[in-house]
Amino acid sequence: MKDDLIRIVKKYGKNISESFYKKFSITEKSAHDFVTDVDKKIEKDIISELRKLSPNASFYGEETGLIKGSNNHSFVIDPIDGTANFIFGIPYFSISIAEIIENKVVQAIVYNPMCKDLFYADINSGAYLNYNKISVSNKTKITDAYAILGFSANSKNIAKYERDHSKLFNETKKALPLLAPSLNLCAVAMGKADIFVDFGCSFEGQVAGGFILQQAGGFVRNYDNEEYDFEQVGIVATNGKILL
Amino acid sequence: MKDDLIRIVKKYGKNISESFYKKFSITEKSAHDFVTDVDKKIEKDIISELRKLSPNASFYGEETGLIKGSNNHSFVIDPIDGTANFIFGIPYFSISIAEIIENKVVQAIVYNPMCKDLFYADINSGAYLNYNKISVSNKTKITDAYAILGFSANSKNIAKYERDHSKLFNETKKALPLLAPSLNLCAVAMGKADIFVDFGCSFEGQVAGGFILQQAGGFVRNYDNEEYDFEQVGIVATNGKILL
Repeated sequence: MKDDLIRIVKKYGKNISESFYKKFSITEKSAHDFVTDVDKKIEKDIISELRKLSPNASFYGEETGLIKGSNNHSFVIDPIDGTANFIFGIPYFSISIAEIIENKVVQAIVYNPMCKDLFYADINSGAYLNYNKISVSNKTKITDAYAILGFSANSKNIAKYERDHSKLFNETKKALPLLAPSLNLCAVAMGKADIFVDFGCSFEGQVAGGFILQQAGGFVRNYDNEEYDFEQVGIVATNGKILL
Repeated sequence: MKDDLIRIVKKYGKNISESFYKKFSITEKSAHDFVTDVDKKIEKDIISELRKLSPNASFYGEETGLIKGSNNHSFVIDPIDGTANFIFGIPYFSISIAEIIENKVVQAIVYNPMCKDLFYADINSGAYLNYNKISVSNKTKITDAYAILGFSANSKNIAKYERDHSKLFNETKKALPLLAPSLNLCAVAMGKADIFVDFGCSFEGQVAGGFILQQAGGFVRNYDNEEYDFEQVGIVATNGKILL
């Protein structure tokens, strides 16, 4: 199944990277939240490929919603995590897929089709970037940390972060605002960034990246509580050594 | 000379993309402003290659400062524009080089070594992405615009943007905060984003990208005045149809 997932993200990643340079149609789902015809097409195609491999599983796609199958085996697909970047001409987005058995992620893949970075983890063998094992950084102090915050330039959202996490804005070594949660989580997993916080991070945006980060030694919880339920919106992620 | 520039950015781009996955040493130049040993090494090497081709020119590198030669022929080199992204494990940065004759840019190149996007423009023949001609979008209204703002997550900087440009935060279709000015300018040049504003954008970060945008039909001025002097800090850039 691992090889199938890799084959699938590479195949559809190529389609996405070709579409990146072309015109595509954009729909506004809600204010500041967009979907393109590329997201929709790729999600449909990936689900169709995965159904051939696991016909009885359930499938959850950002655009499709739930295709109900088995209660204890499912796949969560985000065809383009970071759609806004894709629209803006910014080559920072991923295909993100997680396989869930009995409410636990067992393997996950996050693939950046532009630079071809492939993040993968499974429950038994840790986390990998391009087949090389990765692990989180060793930093322990927030004043040494590189932090990523998931927000667009919108006064209301920024005010919320400044209220909830002013330390990240003003005490870290540096903090970058960046969309594409799956890749932000992987940047922490590879030990380059140390913190990622995103109050609006969706299920399908965080489940694969959150698992990869855990397998790389990192810590994740929901934005609004101390537990981590990947179905809840919002995430606080660190290298496991810095406390937030 | 065009072919030489392309050869040089591809050669050193490969070095940078290999370094991206490794450990490198990071120095804090001032608060939240960093340089790595990769920036320094690549800048030195690129200047050395360019000096072989144009021994009498002047050279300005972000880290080296000015190497004084001819008064009317110079090259401006930013070895890694977007160093913070490079440090954070975010594959969004460029090598940026501009050639200046008698105080006018005559050709410029911006190369993203991770996804291998090559932006090029010269004074005679327009702007290109991977050898395909590019041009700015046709949007005319700020409410339809995709805007990029150059800031990190720092309360003081954000407050300045909200004061100077609240429209960008709250009236555009969407606004993204993003570092790497050269690539942000190129995202506008390719007609995907429509606006880029950065009050702290440096000479070496903006000169090549600003020229490429102009050659693609876009408009640039300094942040604090109506003229455009690429040696001044700060830039306001649009598709030329949206007024700010």
